[in-house]
Amino acid sequence: MTGGSGTTAVGARAPIALADLHDSLADPVLDSMTFLNEIAGRFPDAVSFAAGRPYEEFFEVEAVHRYLRRYCDHLRDEHGLSEGQVNRTLLQYGRTKGIVHHLVATNLSVDEGIDVDPEAIVVTVGAQEAMFLVLRALRSDPRDVLLAVSPNYVGIRGAASLVDMTTLPVRDGSRGIDLVDLARVVRSARAAGQRPRALYLVPDFANPAGASLDRDTRLALLRAASEHDLLILEDNPYGLFHAGGDRPATLKAMDDEGRVVYLGSFAKTGMPGARVGYVVADQPVAGPAGIGLLADELSKIKSMVTVNTSPLAQAVIAGKLLEHGCSLVRANEREAGAYRRNLRHVLDGLAARFPKTGPEGDRVSWNTPAGGFFVVVTVPFVVDDALLERSARDFGVLWTPMHHFYADEGGSHQLRLSVSLLQPPQIEQGLDRLAALIREMRPV
Amino acid sequence: MTGGSGTTAVGARAPIALADLHDSLADPVLDSMTFLNEIAGRFPDAVSFAAGRPYEEFFEVEAVHRYLRRYCDHLRDEHGLSEGQVNRTLLQYGRTKGIVHHLVATNLSVDEGIDVDPEAIVVTVGAQEAMFLVLRALRSDPRDVLLAVSPNYVGIRGAASLVDMTTLPVRDGSRGIDLVDLARVVRSARAAGQRPRALYLVPDFANPAGASLDRDTRLALLRAASEHDLLILEDNPYGLFHAGGDRPATLKAMDDEGRVVYLGSFAKTGMPGARVGYVVADQPVAGPAGIGLLADELSKIKSMVTVNTSPLAQAVIAGKLLEHGCSLVRANEREAGAYRRNLRHVLDGLAARFPKTGPEGDRVSWNTPAGGFFVVVTVPFVVDDALLERSARDFGVLWTPMHHFYADEGGSHQLRLSVSLLQPPQIEQGLDRLAALIREMRPV
Repeated sequence: MTGGSGTTAVGARAPIALADLHDSLADPVLDSMTFLNEIAGRFPDAVSFAAGRPYEEFFEVEAVHRYLRRYCDHLRDEHGLSEGQVNRTLLQYGRTKGIVHHLVATNLSVDEGIDVDPEAIVVTVGAQEAMFLVLRALRSDPRDVLLAVSPNYVGIRGAASLVDMTTLPVRDGSRGIDLVDLARVVRSARAAGQRPRALYLVPDFANPAGASLDRDTRLALLRAASEHDLLILEDNPYGLFHAGGDRPATLKAMDDEGRVVYLGSFAKTGMPGARVGYVVADQPVAGPAGIGLLADELSKIKSMVTVNTSPLAQAVIAGKLLEHGCSLVRANEREAGAYRRNLRHVLDGLAARFPKTGPEGDRVSWNTPAGGFFVVVTVPFVVDDALLERSARDFGVLWTPMHHFYADEGGSHQLRLSVSLLQPPQIEQGLDRLAALIREMRPV
Repeated sequence: MTGGSGTTAVGARAPIALADLHDSLADPVLDSMTFLNEIAGRFPDAVSFAAGRPYEEFFEVEAVHRYLRRYCDHLRDEHGLSEGQVNRTLLQYGRTKGIVHHLVATNLSVDEGIDVDPEAIVVTVGAQEAMFLVLRALRSDPRDVLLAVSPNYVGIRGAASLVDMTTLPVRDGSRGIDLVDLARVVRSARAAGQRPRALYLVPDFANPAGASLDRDTRLALLRAASEHDLLILEDNPYGLFHAGGDRPATLKAMDDEGRVVYLGSFAKTGMPGARVGYVVADQPVAGPAGIGLLADELSKIKSMVTVNTSPLAQAVIAGKLLEHGCSLVRANEREAGAYRRNLRHVLDGLAARFPKTGPEGDRVSWNTPAGGFFVVVTVPFVVDDALLERSARDFGVLWTPMHHFYADEGGSHQLRLSVSLLQPPQIEQGLDRLAALIREMRPV
C-alpha cells in the first residue's frame, strides 16, 4: 500500500495561521518550557543547573521489573486475584480514578498524617494533569480567576492558560506567602468583578523560590482562605526532601474545613518515567442529583482527557510503595541524602566564590532553603534569555532565568540553580563557570 | 503526625455548587461514560456486550517484562546507549513529543502505507489525549465548531465539550459519510456565523456504527474537505481488524493536501494498560517566528496537560513493535482471528434467533460490518437507559443504548453489541438473553 498515488491533488492547503489557534499558544508561559528545553538540547555538554529533574544515579530498569512483580504478588496474595485477573488489572483499560488509590491513601497517612477516603483520590498522569483537571472544573465563567503565589511553577500558569483562566500573582514575601497581599489581591479582583476561585502554592521548598511556610503561617493562611472563601491548591512535590529537622504538617493535614485540594506527584519520590501523580479532592459538590465528591467531577473530566492513567505505570509506583511499607520517606533515604549533600555543596560553593569581603560580596546574594531542589541567586545585572544563551555557549553552564516564573515583571535580576541532578564535581565545575560569567558582567 | 488537631476550625465550608463548575460537567456526554461504567459495575455477572475493550485471552504480564527488555536491547544495540542512558531513557522525564516516534513512523509505513516525518508525531496518553490536544488548539474562538460523523464515539464530543466547542453532527448515510449532508452542515454553519474547523470520523469499522468508507467515498471526502477548507481528523483504532480481503488506504495515505490529522491508538493493537496513542500533525503553522509544524503546537499544549507520555509505557509498546518488525498486523494475528470469529458468531447468532420468517423477522434487524468491534441492532421499541438497567437486572445481559452516540435525537430504537471481549459460549448465552428481552418487548 502506498500513499498518495492516484488521488486528486489540488495543491497543498495554506498553512494554518497561529492566530487561528488557541490563545494559549501565544502565551509566553507555553513558550517558556519550549525555550528552556530547546536551549538545554542545543548545549548538551554544558553543566546544567537548569533541569529540576530528580537525581538519576540510583535509576535502574531492573527495579521496574521488581516493582511490577511486587504489585502482582500483592494482587494475588492480599486481594486473592487469579492470574487472569492480575493480567487484566495491569494490561486492560482500568478505573478512571485509578487502581492504586488505597495505596496512595496509605502513603498519605504514613508519610504526611493526611487521612483521606481513597474514593476522594484521582490518580493522574503526573501532578500536571491533576492541575489541569482542577482548573478545568473551576473555570466555569470568564470572571473566574486563579491566585498563585509568585514566583511559581510555569505548569500552573500554563494549565490556567489552556482553560482561559487568568492567574493573579500573590507575593511570597519573607514567609512564603504575603497574607496582606493576598487580601489586597482578593479585594481588588472582586472589585473588578472577578471571582477568585482558588489559591495555588507550594508550601514546602517552593519551585522556584525554595521558600517554606512555617506552622503559624500555614494556620493563618487557612484562616485567610476561610475568610476570603477560597479553595487552596496545595502542591507538594518536594516536601520529603528537607535538609533535616522538623517539617510542619501539610495544609491538607490541618484542613478542618475541606478547603485544601492536595496535588501529589510521584515524579520526584517514585519514578518520573511512570508519569503518575494524583489529586485529593474530598470537597462536596451539590448538583441536581444530590451531593457528590469533587473527585468524581474531576474523574468525569479525566475520562475525556486521558481516559485513565496507565495501570502499568500505576503498578510500578504501587510496587515501589509496597516495597517500602508505603513510606516514600523510607524509599527515598538515599535520594534525600543526595539532595541534602548537593544543596549544601551549592550553598557552600557560592559562599566560597562570592565571599562577603570579595569584589561581589555585596552585589551577589542567594537564599538558603531548608530543603528542596532550588536556590535563587540575585545578581547586579539583568538576567534574560540572551544571557542564558551566552552563558551556555561561552561559559558552558545552564541555569534558569527567574523571569520565567513571574507572570509580571519580577525576577529580572535573578537566576535559579537546580541542585537535584548533579554530582559534587559537576557542581564545582558549574559554579566556577557561573562565577566566571558573573565576574565578566562586573561593570568596569 | 496527625491531621487537624489544634487548628482553628470554623466549620466545614459549604458544598461547591455544580453550577459553579465548568459547563461540560452538566453535558450529558460526560455522564454517558459514567453511567455506562456504573451500570457495568453494578451487574458484574451479566454477559457484557457493552465494553468496547480489546480481547483479554492473550494478556500476560510476562509480555510486559519481555517488551521492556526488547526495547532496552534496541537502545543498547541499535542506538549505542550506555546502561546509564538506557536507565534514564525509561525512568527519567522525557521528550514532550515522545521517545518512540521513529518506531511509530515505521509502523505507519509498514502497516498503513503512510509516510510521515517522525517529528510530526506527538506520542500521547491514548488517542483521547490526541483528540483533546487537537481540539484545544483548533478552538480559538466561540465561533469555532467541530463537525463529526454521527453516531460517534462519546470521547470526541466530550473532548470538544471540555474546550467549549460545539459539535455539529453529519449524517453517516449508507456510505459511512453523507457528503450532501456535510455540504449542508458546512453551509448552514457558515450562514450562522460559525467556523467549521475540522471533521471527525472513523473511516474503518466506526464506533459505534461499524461502517467503513470505500475508496471512492474517501477520495470524494478529500475533495469535499478541500472544497470546504476543512481539516479531517481521521481516527483509526480498528482498521487492522477487518474480516478479510482488501481494505482501502487510510485517508492520511491519500492526503496530498495535508488536510488529514491522523489519530492513532495502541489500545486495541498494542496494550490498553499502556495508555499510549499518538497524533500525526504535519500541517504547517504560520506564526510571527516563521513556519512550524502543528505537532509542535500540540506539544506545547501537551506540556501543560500531561508533560510527556510515560516513557516506561512507551517502552512497552516499542518492545511489542520491535518484536514484530514494527507490524501490528503481524502482532495481532491471533487477536484479529478472535475478533473475526466473534463477529461471525454474533451475526450468525442473531440470524439464528431472529429468522426472516420468524415472529420478529421484519421487526429486528442489524448491520453486517466487514470488521471491527461493533454490531448495531435495530428493534421495534424504544431503547433507553431504563431498558438497559432492566436488561441487566432481569435478563443478565449488558449492551449500549445507541442514543449515547448521538448528539441529537438519533438511535432511539437501536442498541450496540460489542463483540470484542467475549468467548463464543458467552456470546451464545448473551444472545439467548438478549432474544428473551426482545421477545418480552413484543407488543401483545
